[in-house]
Amino acid sequence: MAVKGLGQLDKEYDGSKLRVGIIHARWNRVIIDALVDGAIKRMLSLGVKEENIIVETVPGSYELPYGSKRFIDAQKKKGEPLDVVIPIGVLIKGSTMHFEYISDSTTHALMNLQDKVHIPVIFGLLTCLTEEQALARAGIDEAHSMHNHGEDWGAAAVEMATKFGPNAF
Amino acid sequence: MAVKGLGQLDKEYDGSKLRVGIIHARWNRVIIDALVDGAIKRMLSLGVKEENIIVETVPGSYELPYGSKRFIDAQKKKGEPLDVVIPIGVLIKGSTMHFEYISDSTTHALMNLQDKVHIPVIFGLLTCLTEEQALARAGIDEAHSMHNHGEDWGAAAVEMATKFGPNAF
Amino acid sequence: MAVKGLGQLDKEYDGSKLRVGIIHARWNRVIIDALVDGAIKRMLSLGVKEENIIVETVPGSYELPYGSKRFIDAQKKKGEPLDVVIPIGVLIKGSTMHFEYISDSTTHALMNLQDKVHIPVIFGLLTCLTEEQALARAGIDEAHSMHNHGEDWGAAAVEMATKFGPNAF
Amino acid sequence: MAVKGLGQLDKEYDGSKLRVGIIHARWNRVIIDALVDGAIKRMLSLGVKEENIIVETVPGSYELPYGSKRFIDAQKKKGEPLDVVIPIGVLIKGSTMHFEYISDSTTHALMNLQDKVHIPVIFGLLTCLTEEQALARAGIDEAHSMHNHGEDWGAAAVEMATKFGPNAF
Amino acid sequence: MAVKGLGQLDKEYDGSKLRVGIIHARWNRVIIDALVDGAIKRMLSLGVKEENIIVETVPGSYELPYGSKRFIDAQKKKGEPLDVVIPIGVLIKGSTMHFEYISDSTTHALMNLQDKVHIPVIFGLLTCLTEEQALARAGIDEAHSMHNHGEDWGAAAVEMATKFGPNAF
Repeated sequence: MAVKGLGQLDKEYDGSKLRVGIIHARWNRVIIDALVDGAIKRMLSLGVKEENIIVETVPGSYELPYGSKRFIDAQKKKGEPLDVVIPIGVLIKGSTMHFEYISDSTTHALMNLQDKVHIPVIFGLLTCLTEEQALARAGIDEAHSMHNHGEDWGAAAVEMATKFGPNAF
Repeated sequence: MAVKGLGQLDKEYDGSKLRVGIIHARWNRVIIDALVDGAIKRMLSLGVKEENIIVETVPGSYELPYGSKRFIDAQKKKGEPLDVVIPIGVLIKGSTMHFEYISDSTTHALMNLQDKVHIPVIFGLLTCLTEEQALARAGIDEAHSMHNHGEDWGAAAVEMATKFGPNAF
Repeated sequence: MAVKGLGQLDKEYDGSKLRVGIIHARWNRVIIDALVDGAIKRMLSLGVKEENIIVETVPGSYELPYGSKRFIDAQKKKGEPLDVVIPIGVLIKGSTMHFEYISDSTTHALMNLQDKVHIPVIFGLLTCLTEEQALARAGIDEAHSMHNHGEDWGAAAVEMATKFGPNAF
Repeated sequence: MAVKGLGQLDKEYDGSKLRVGIIHARWNRVIIDALVDGAIKRMLSLGVKEENIIVETVPGSYELPYGSKRFIDAQKKKGEPLDVVIPIGVLIKGSTMHFEYISDSTTHALMNLQDKVHIPVIFGLLTCLTEEQALARAGIDEAHSMHNHGEDWGAAAVEMATKFGPNAF
Repeated sequence: MAVKGLGQLDKEYDGSKLRVGIIHARWNRVIIDALVDGAIKRMLSLGVKEENIIVETVPGSYELPYGSKRFIDAQKKKGEPLDVVIPIGVLIKGSTMHFEYISDSTTHALMNLQDKVHIPVIFGLLTCLTEEQALARAGIDEAHSMHNHGEDWGAAAVEMATKFGPNAF
């Protein structure tokens, strides 16, 4: 019995009225770029307009929570508020405990961010033990063993913004 | 001496006046569906009316806390406020650390959600090391080795809403 | 040198004016009951009046923080406010990660609860790796290897309420 | 190259105008007493007046955060507000997971306490795997292998109160 | 394929109008000093003026979050508010669990600090299992195996202040 597997969308969503922010770290750039592309393609396929996808960057994953917050603030100040944000980062276990403390604090902070910014925050953080794991989850390992997880994040962003975003009800 | 084992209800509850929200992730769907069914059946057996059980979904478990919050908001806005919510998700350990960070942040966020929404939040998250463990806890492994944990959540929801819900006192 | 060992009370306390709430989970009921009895006996020995010890229950340990909060609210609303609360639960390691996530989130939530309810919350949670460990800490393993930890919690409740409770100064 | 080692004070501080609270748990009392003595001696050597060091106790380490908060409140109410507080406790790993959950929740709560009480909170918690480790860090193991860590806490208290205390600027 | 590696700046930044605070612990001083130097040099190379880099210290890493908060307060009170702060500390695993609890609570507190002080906080904490790892990350191990991580923090500070600082938009 194949119980596991990708959570499918519960219906086709129309993203044509949504504004989506992507904010990504710049470490492990090849992997990040593939994930960002995957998220964008999936959102375009769900009707999000290219001009309504705004991309910003931060140096590393630890900067994602505060960077996301201020990115959201800045878009609001411009009169172009976001309906949802996808922070994207790739953390790979090294020899110190840096990976564990960054992963843990960033995950909690992104979760808690939602109550401060009042829009959904999609969890686009890969927390991998090896580089190979990260490549696979971006759909770019040599064996093409997995799909590009950015696609899931793009779909989740459209669904969450439509169901639970600031203009959903 | 059999000390462990299911906590029994301390009395028979009458759920006929309660409105209950179930919000579930869609990963590991076969298991999720069994758990949702178990929760619903138990609540019906305690008098909750079918039309007072509202079901919503989110893509994955990380979306449960904010999804729950907005689901509760939406029901309130409709004039049909919930007395209790049961977020349901199934997390299974994979090869990266994704399981650990999602499990940890989601568990804390569901706990803390209660102080923001002022209704009880029942912990319907399975955090399993294998798929087999999750199937067993949904009552659908081949050996039928365990009961459906959704039943416990349904009973807990009725009890907590009756004792401690927004209309309890 | 015997450095470890039970922290003794720093003086004899008079609990005759205190109102104490005990709220306990109902899993592992034999152990829970022994712990609750231990706490009550110790408080009676320190002068707390039987009618001033109020006992409530929740299904499981995860329900303790919000249950405690609402239990405290309810007593206040009745005009019978509590000076201190003792949430009691027994968590035993199983094969999934349920134990770890419940233990961690519940411990943090009980700690943080104090700033919301403005009364001391005594930590009456056993987080055991085996059933035998829990039986021992309730004073009911066959070897009677340890004292009933509920007694410590009862003493701590009287001390904390007297020194730091809402009517302490 | 000796890179590690005790952080030295960056200058000689004059503690003569400071009021310092010490609040300690009473488990592992021999070790606690040595640590408290170490902290007091160091503060006296930096000019803190004996009558300006106030000592309070709680049963165990889990009681330190709320105990500290109320201790600070009480001193303020008396018109004798504290400039800094040193909560002191000794946690030693046992056979259950009690050590881990208490250590983690207490450490976080003491950290977060600072934003509520608006004075520095010095971290006087030993989280040891063996009793021998705790004895060593109190300067009282037979080999006298380490200095008394209470001294560091006393020095940190004077520095933090002087630089960052409520009357620092 | 070289996927990992330092996240490069996304453009050349002009730091000439920024005021930056560095606050560092004093344990493991040789390593700390190298990291502080690295951060300062990188910021100078990005145009930050020497007189606009203010350096403060605390005894140990646990003091960094509250010390940072009050350092920021003090600069604001002087009429010289900071645009960004870099707390720097070096934690090295010892035989007790001190390393784990300090690292965890300090990382979370520095993350959360950003929402209180409304300026970016750069994560300048090394959490190493050995002294050799820390020396390498400060660029001062004998093999010169790694670059000085303080440089990354300096660059991140300039970028984050420029993009997301209090005067960014």
